[in-house]
Order: sequence, then C-alpha cells, then structure tokens
Amino acid sequence: MPSTDLVFRSQAEHRAWLAAQAALPRGFRVGVTRFAFEPAEAPKRAQMTLTLIAAAQPTPAFAALFTRNACPGAPIIVGRQRLAAPALGALVINNKVSNVGAPGGVADCEAVCAATARLLGIPESAVLPASTGVIGWKLPLSAMLAALPEAVAALSAAQGILPAAEGICTTDLYPKIRRADLPEGSIVGIAKGAGMIEPNLATMLVFVLSDLAIEREALRADLAWAVERSFNRLTIDSDTSTSDMVVAWSSGLGGRPERAAFRTALLRVCGDLAEDIVRNGEGVHHVLRIRVRGAPSEGVAVALGKAVANSPLVQCAMLGNDPNVGRIVAALGKVAPQLGIDLARLSVEIGGIVVYRDGAFRLDRDKEAALHAHLRQAELYASAPPAEGLRFRPPISWPPHERAVEIAADLGLGEAEATVLGADRSHEYITENADYRS
Amino acid sequence: MPSTDLVFRSQAEHRAWLAAQAALPRGFRVGVTRFAFEPAEAPKRAQMTLTLIAAAQPTPAFAALFTRNACPGAPIIVGRQRLAAPALGALVINNKVSNVGAPGGVADCEAVCAATARLLGIPESAVLPASTGVIGWKLPLSAMLAALPEAVAALSAAQGILPAAEGICTTDLYPKIRRADLPEGSIVGIAKGAGMIEPNLATMLVFVLSDLAIEREALRADLAWAVERSFNRLTIDSDTSTSDMVVAWSSGLGGRPERAAFRTALLRVCGDLAEDIVRNGEGVHHVLRIRVRGAPSEGVAVALGKAVANSPLVQCAMLGNDPNVGRIVAALGKVAPQLGIDLARLSVEIGGIVVYRDGAFRLDRDKEAALHAHLRQAELYASAPPAEGLRFRPPISWPPHERAVEIAADLGLGEAEATVLGADRSHEYITENADYRS
Repeated sequence: MPSTDLVFRSQAEHRAWLAAQAALPRGFRVGVTRFAFEPAEAPKRAQMTLTLIAAAQPTPAFAALFTRNACPGAPIIVGRQRLAAPALGALVINNKVSNVGAPGGVADCEAVCAATARLLGIPESAVLPASTGVIGWKLPLSAMLAALPEAVAALSAAQGILPAAEGICTTDLYPKIRRADLPEGSIVGIAKGAGMIEPNLATMLVFVLSDLAIEREALRADLAWAVERSFNRLTIDSDTSTSDMVVAWSSGLGGRPERAAFRTALLRVCGDLAEDIVRNGEGVHHVLRIRVRGAPSEGVAVALGKAVANSPLVQCAMLGNDPNVGRIVAALGKVAPQLGIDLARLSVEIGGIVVYRDGAFRLDRDKEAALHAHLRQAELYASAPPAEGLRFRPPISWPPHERAVEIAADLGLGEAEATVLGADRSHEYITENADYRS
Repeated sequence: MPSTDLVFRSQAEHRAWLAAQAALPRGFRVGVTRFAFEPAEAPKRAQMTLTLIAAAQPTPAFAALFTRNACPGAPIIVGRQRLAAPALGALVINNKVSNVGAPGGVADCEAVCAATARLLGIPESAVLPASTGVIGWKLPLSAMLAALPEAVAALSAAQGILPAAEGICTTDLYPKIRRADLPEGSIVGIAKGAGMIEPNLATMLVFVLSDLAIEREALRADLAWAVERSFNRLTIDSDTSTSDMVVAWSSGLGGRPERAAFRTALLRVCGDLAEDIVRNGEGVHHVLRIRVRGAPSEGVAVALGKAVANSPLVQCAMLGNDPNVGRIVAALGKVAPQLGIDLARLSVEIGGIVVYRDGAFRLDRDKEAALHAHLRQAELYASAPPAEGLRFRPPISWPPHERAVEIAADLGLGEAEATVLGADRSHEYITENADYRS
C-alpha cells in the first residue's frame, strides 16, 4: 500500500528528505507568520500560526471535500459556499482555534477572508479558509487581521511548501509532504492531523497543489475517487472532526497529463499522506494495515477493517507487541451481525502467519514467538518512563521507518476487498489528550 | 439513576457492606475452588477459579440472554441450547479461559457440564456453563475435571453469594453484589466485567438469583426488559465480548410478588450492577452518566449517548478533569448524519450548567471553573506515577463513592430519552491491556 519504504535514522535525515519533496508546482507561493494571543475562554496565553497559499492568479480548477460532522466549523460552512465560486486565488489557514460553534464564528471567518482578499487584490469569494485547533473558542480576530499583512509580505516560492507543511500543524510531531512528478508537471500535497481522526467522506486538513492542466469537474471527480481510497480508510481515534477538509488545486501552468496517469498520481499522493497521518498519529507506536478480502462489498470490507482498527483492546494489545488474535476475531464478530454477514469461512493472518481458520484459532508457542517478532519490527518507538511518571512524550520527532503490522482477514464471501489503516493506543495518546485543553 | 448513593472510605467498609448484601435467596448454595494449570498456548503458568451455583432441585424458572457477537464462545453455543431444557439445576463458571474459538471447545464445555451433572445427580441439560478470560486458549479440561469435586464439596449457603461474586472476577478490582428485598422473597445479583464491554442485547457475566415465585415466560420477558434498560446502555470500551451472558434464575421457594413490583426490583438490581460494572471498569477514574432527552426515539437517544461515551477524546478529557465541551458536541455531530437527525435545537449541560445552546457554545472563565469542579468531585482516584514509570495500577480496590459526571443533551426533537453509562480512558486501562496477554 505505501508507495515508498523509507527509513530515517534522525530528524536531520527526515528534514533533508522533506526539503527534497518541497518544490512548489508552478504558479504558487507560500507565506507564514506566527503570533501570540489571549483566548477569552481560558486563562492561558496561546500561539497561532497563519499560513497563506496563493496562486499567481485565481484559477477555476479546484476541488474540496468537507467533513460530514453535523456540527461543522465556520470554515466548513464558508468553504461549501466557495465551491460555486468561479475561481480560487488563496488559502488562508490558521491553527490553535478551529472556529467551531463559537458565537459569530462565520462572520469572523468571512472577515479574515475579506482582509486576505483585499491584501491580495482578488475577490473575497476566491479565498478559501481553513481552521484547526480547540473547538468552542472564538477566533482572535483583531490579532489575525494584524498578522495578515506579515503573511502576505512573506509570500515566496523559494522554500517550497515546507513552511506551509509546518505552519498548519497542531499536535503533529513533524510536517508531512508527499509529491508525484509527471512529465507535464507535478502534484504536491501536505497534511496535518494527529488526533480526532476518522474522516467521513472528507478529512483532516489536506492541501494538494498541482500545475497540471485539468478541468475543474475532472479534478473534483478524481479527488473524490482518491479520497475514498485513502483518507476515508484510516482511523486514529474514530473521532470524525468538525473541521476536516481536503483541497486539491491546480494552477494549470503545466502540461495536460493523461487522465489515468493524473488519477494514479493523485491517489499516490493522497495514499502516502494518509499513511503519514496515521504514522504521526498522537502517541502512535504501531501503524496497523488491515486488509479485508473475500468481502461481498467494499463497504463491508471497510467496516470490518475499521472495527478492528477502532477496537481499544486490539489497539492496546498492539502497543504491547502482544499478537492477541482473540481480540481481532472478537472485533470482527462484534460488527458482523450489524453487517448481516456470516463469519463461518473467516481466516485471519498476521504478518503472513495463519492464526484463525475453519472456526478455530491455529496457535502454538512457535507461532506466538514469530507473531511477537512481527509486531516488534513494526514498532516506531517504545514508551519510556517519564521523570515524573505521568506526562509521556514521544522520544522521536521523525518517522523512523514505514513498516506496519500487517493484518489480513479473508471472509470467503465474495471478491471485494479494502485496506484500512489504524494505529495502536498508548500512554502518549492519553497524556496528549487528558492534558487540560490540549 | 443509581438506587443508592454510597460512600466507602476503605476496603474494609466496602467488604462489610458487600457481606450485608450477600444473603442467598432460599434454595441456593455456592461452592468455589481455585487451582493452577499450564496453558498449551503460552509459556506462563495460570490460575483458574471454578464457581458452582446449585439449586436444591432443578427449577423451570430461568432466563438467559447471550452476546450477539458473531464469534461466540462455546458456553454461549451450549447455553443457547439450554434455554429449551425443562429446568436449571446448576451454573458452572470458570474464569481465565473464555473457551472462544478453541479447537474442540464445545466438546470440552459439554464435558465440564456432564461431570458437574454426575456429581450433583441432575441431568446434563440442567447445567448451564459460563466462561470468561483469554480468547483462543483451550480449557484445561483435565485440571477442571479434577477440581470439580472440590467445588461440589464446598457447596454451602452459609457465606451467601460473596464467594461466587469473587470467584467469577478476572481484572475486576472488587466483587459486585446487588439485591432487592420484597415481602415475598429477594433478588440477588452478581456481576463480573471490567473490559471488552459494550453489551449488545446481552452482557458480561451476570447471575441473578431469586426465590420469588414467577413463571419461566414471565421471568424471560422481564429479564429482557430490564437488560435493555441497564446493561445494554453501558460501555467501557465498545468491545462487545464473545462471552457476554446474563442469567436470572428463581428457586420459586418464596412467595408470589406483584408482577410490577418484581419488574421494578429486577431492574433495580440490574441497573445497580450496571453502574457497578462501569465504576469498576478497567482504569476507570470517572463514571459518565449521559442523559439524552428530546429525542425522536429511544434508539436515537442511546446511539447519541454511546457516541459520547465511546469517543476517545471525550474519555481522555474526562480523565484530565477537562470539561472539553467541544469534544462532546463533536461526538454528537459525528453520528447525527448517520441517524438522520438535525442538531439545530441541541442544548448541552454538564453538571446542570448550560454549555451549548442555539448553535453556539456558552462559555466563560467562571463556568469553566465550575465545570472543572464538577469533574473533580466525580473522580474516583487520580493516576499516581508508578515507581518504574510504566505499569500504572489503581491505588484503591473499592469504590470510594457513586458520583458521576452528569452530561445532559436535549435534542428538542421529540419525547424519547435514555441514559447511557460510560467511563473515561486512563493510563491504567492502557497498562492493563497492553500487558502481554492480560
């Protein structure tokens, strides 16, 4: 499933690789600024980063998918309206405050777009907003309006997309950039997202830029197709966010690719970013790649994969390098009645080793040792006791490798299949999210 | 919702209270034995407790509900057949090995029932088996058959149901007993269950004994009614077990109660045990009592309550005494589209304090302090840094109080309502379940 099989031995190695991915497609510039503010709702000072991505001129070839959460943020409400606009000229993205359910949130969001539009000399409808961070807080509007000219002044293509990949992060351990190069031009994507993640027909904050010549409707169809096969098949904590958004946007300054090659390249960028998001998920020690085959439909395969990925007991077992196959079968059995399927022909493999077949577990002490070894090789890091015993922090801020725990279930019921990405559950996740208003 | 509001300052106080609840209904005896064995599947020695509950003579008035997990344990498969038997004479219950998916599991289960029946001089069909513990392991049959005569020899009514309440435990911190006394007789229930818990039309291991005169069909109807309103509305970790079972059983040696009084008493015992199970859930620091009102149906109210209870981010916030209302609204918004309901009229209260109304959060620093105080008063204990920094253990082995975090959502859509019980997610849960084959 991953298009790469990278190993990084240090943050410096990872940074060098990111820098090599970061070249912007023709026609785009990035500007970032950072500032402090006082939230009205909480007693502690906070930091916000404002990220601007601007095109040389507004272009019609853009696509966006938004969260299906019934309590969406103001940028989602405004963003849905933008889909009808004739062209997109800028993305304005802030972290720290998601602008969800805040009184006056839509008006504040529109004020940020209007100010951005004035500074860039483009229509307000050509500015697409995005926000991520605490739910319920109001945007610090005056501080943002004061910071916007700095972001505009910083606009540059020289450092590529790396400043934006860093600027949109919240609890992410590291920035995420993926690219695909075609003879006619390139596709470059960035993503943030480490918690509150089980996308539902949209996802996290993901921005994909291209210079490949493609029409708006084709881009929208291809983005929906690629998202269904990438971001919609991952879960870190089952908590579909109020602010998820995927945007794809082309300057059209490059050549016209074969449509099939474009689709494949777009899916590769989305699929790699989806893997990156899970690998960098809050407190993730193991990525789980759960392939469900022999399903009567792709939907059933995805639902069973997600049942395994979202099982807290499977997640904890994986953390402990415990090949607890009983919990995997129990998780499949939990949702099978709701899906109306029979598990009589179920077989399950972990790391290519058969652990369940013909209605019974197939286990012995040698297999157990081999399964344990498979989990250990997929481990990104182990929890280390912190000095004060409570506040676990990941010891690394780069992805050491791209290996995963490979779980395969065959239902013996049909021809459909799907692969779902999940993660384990760790002390670091608890620390991150039990912290007072993380 | 709880029928009591108890406070315990020590394990001794809790034990004294349990002993006062433990008197058996007329016609029942309990026998327990414990022994060590060598699992075939794992390298370490294990302990098993065998618990026998026997009636003076087999009686027809029994009812049982079983898990809907599609991969049920052998005792569930055998137990479903027992529903057609003319009478029940004994329950035989083991912990440590759940006998799920083990090769030859049903035959082993039947061998235990047959041996029990021979020793008691009753038909094999009058013995109902139950197992809980590791999934995938085989029952240690010869060790169990060797231990059974000891359990039969130990049969006694003198210590009441307490030895059984202890004998069925696995990762439970303490035994759970609840009773209701009517003029004509009594109802006494015990429960085990601390992880892999989101019952689906059946639950955990729960055994309810009575001497009240009631017909089999009436008992079966009333048990289904009470379970729907108690165990089916709680979740600790969303993982519906392969081995859940609730049994209600009357000796009929007492008087005949009013049917309505019987139902109410049965629901009280089931409801109190449900609260006990969540309070004693693995690593639980806070019980969450989520009341959803104004719903178009009870099913919608339960689904929304469970979405909040099963949100990892809500769970972690509660652990940290963080009234993170954004995560509660996000969890409701996550499932609302699947339920086809509109949240425009949603209001949310925590501890009686309005936090969301008319599409926006209603928050300020004073409310924040009051919400934080509400969470703190509901805390059962706080995580303490363990000596070696990784292996968190609950510092108490009794329930210090019965207070909960009170979350109320009003949808403004109808007259239906339901209360769901949930819990926070802690370092102690991770430690418990990441341990190699806990």
